[in-house]
Amino acid sequence: MLMTEDYRFLKACRREEVDCTPVWMMRQAGRYLEEYRALRADRTFLEMCRTPELAAEVTLQPMRRFDLDAAIIFADILLPLPGMGVDLSFAKGEGPVIGNPVRSVEDVDSLLPLQPEEHVPFLKEAIQRVRKELEGRAPLIGFSGAPFTLASYMIEGGGSKNYVNAKGLMYGRPDVWHRFMDKVSDAIISYLNFQVEAGVQAVQLFDSWVGTLGPADYQEYVYPHSQRILQSIDKKIPTIHFGTGNATLLPLMKKAGGDVIGVDWRSDLGDAWSLLGHDVGIQGNLDPVTLFAPVEVIESRVQRILSSAGNRAGHIFNLGHGILPQTPVEHAGAMIEAVHRLSAR
Amino acid sequence: MLMTEDYRFLKACRREEVDCTPVWMMRQAGRYLEEYRALRADRTFLEMCRTPELAAEVTLQPMRRFDLDAAIIFADILLPLPGMGVDLSFAKGEGPVIGNPVRSVEDVDSLLPLQPEEHVPFLKEAIQRVRKELEGRAPLIGFSGAPFTLASYMIEGGGSKNYVNAKGLMYGRPDVWHRFMDKVSDAIISYLNFQVEAGVQAVQLFDSWVGTLGPADYQEYVYPHSQRILQSIDKKIPTIHFGTGNATLLPLMKKAGGDVIGVDWRSDLGDAWSLLGHDVGIQGNLDPVTLFAPVEVIESRVQRILSSAGNRAGHIFNLGHGILPQTPVEHAGAMIEAVHRLSAR
Repeated sequence: MLMTEDYRFLKACRREEVDCTPVWMMRQAGRYLEEYRALRADRTFLEMCRTPELAAEVTLQPMRRFDLDAAIIFADILLPLPGMGVDLSFAKGEGPVIGNPVRSVEDVDSLLPLQPEEHVPFLKEAIQRVRKELEGRAPLIGFSGAPFTLASYMIEGGGSKNYVNAKGLMYGRPDVWHRFMDKVSDAIISYLNFQVEAGVQAVQLFDSWVGTLGPADYQEYVYPHSQRILQSIDKKIPTIHFGTGNATLLPLMKKAGGDVIGVDWRSDLGDAWSLLGHDVGIQGNLDPVTLFAPVEVIESRVQRILSSAGNRAGHIFNLGHGILPQTPVEHAGAMIEAVHRLSAR
Repeated sequence: MLMTEDYRFLKACRREEVDCTPVWMMRQAGRYLEEYRALRADRTFLEMCRTPELAAEVTLQPMRRFDLDAAIIFADILLPLPGMGVDLSFAKGEGPVIGNPVRSVEDVDSLLPLQPEEHVPFLKEAIQRVRKELEGRAPLIGFSGAPFTLASYMIEGGGSKNYVNAKGLMYGRPDVWHRFMDKVSDAIISYLNFQVEAGVQAVQLFDSWVGTLGPADYQEYVYPHSQRILQSIDKKIPTIHFGTGNATLLPLMKKAGGDVIGVDWRSDLGDAWSLLGHDVGIQGNLDPVTLFAPVEVIESRVQRILSSAGNRAGHIFNLGHGILPQTPVEHAGAMIEAVHRLSAR
């Protein structure tokens, strides 16, 4: 039975010394687990998210299998959207679809403020259930999509290659862009603080799509919004600020905020940490595709990242992006075991 | 009538002083031009590439419209594949499809050596035609896909999100991976030298997909092959080494070779140049999506990049990636004009 202040993950977030490097995996509650697929078989994805018993169960599944140092609540970055008036559905095998993409001033103005108690009440109960189960074992992370990622999703209406519509609004109508980002950020702040109030012990802001921007655009169109969000979270819990393809944005992301900056696999972790400065924690960064390789290759890659971090206080091991659905489960286990063993102080 | 040694583009490749910054656009011969779409209307893409009169005409189209400082031969990075025994087709509206993706040792061993005179003879005639037309006006660039990009195309059988098969081979069977990369590199070397012999005055190696790799993987699995290619080109003409999403790979790409390193829009150009060192040229790096913005926004972005380069000898202006098919033609023209005007020494 650990006390909250002793959790290895939370200690690393505060850059305190730990007995070994903590590890968790983005998307660890998910399709690579057969017990997840069994629950998901006759239910929709949104039904899974919106049923607290199921969301809690799925959050706990990887914690039972593996010696993970943190759980992350099962949810989707798009969950706040319906409450804002966005028509969101998950087409079978096609991912999320938005029926009314945001394209005009009128679309922006008609967005509603998110009321978490009304729109995402299930999340509170799921968090409370998980907290009870994990007491003394590991902390629970809450999360939200970052404003650029959510806003471009809402504009493009789904995934995008070039973000022509999102950047079109940014460049063509910066006033509307910022008004939109303000609204999205308001929703994110209430969404995250609702989770904090419900009991999550850390939060991660996922800027999964921010890698389509160069530093000048990030600074002008994204930075002030992400900064406002990270400054509006209850300061007593650690914040992780993660982006994908964000090598050139790291100094700005640090400036925007986060006790820990998450980096993807495209950066050498030690180089990225030097660039960020060691007055902030770092999370990452094994290429998720490495988990398809033989176990000895996985171990050598884990060792390389640990060496690059140099057992410095403040490293949280993770994948550089979410674990892929086809990943062999035992390889994920081998990675987690290797992180603890090879980083033992 | 300019002499070859006076071409602004070639001078910049050699890092000599120029009267203003040269500019060309990746994919400048293409669908954003109505005169291209007219020729393409009742022909397949491969027919366009394989008919020297058409390939030459399409190469020249943007040169007639704009004050571009270089032409690039109309071709596709996948053109060398059929000669190697790869079953390549371009499905309507779906991009390239490979009928027999390379997955096993046997697949690698059954690849044939490219014989350019036999497999891509049309390219020679197209190059000769363009050279004749452009004499005294602008130089002609030849190009090839880089070995990682071509190899992963051949393995995945088309575009890919996670490169699970390509990385699977790299991590799981490094011996087979390197044997495969050797064969692909041999083909690229003969393909590029065939173009050099036919008359191109510079070559660009496109590593469009290399951004999926971190530096350690690049060094181990890609670097030696790209280096061998860049060392095997007739040294009398400049080489440009371009990658997408390559911010963390820049120092290694420079080490692999290239008189000029191409950077995408995710890096600040001046920062990237400092990282590379000023003993190499740099090409880039306007976000192609910027060309959808109002002209005054385009101008301010052009100015920002020029300021970042500081009128230092060795900068070639370009987009950070290929021009998009829906781009307004007059915006491309405005960008080209702005580059020359705002960079006049």
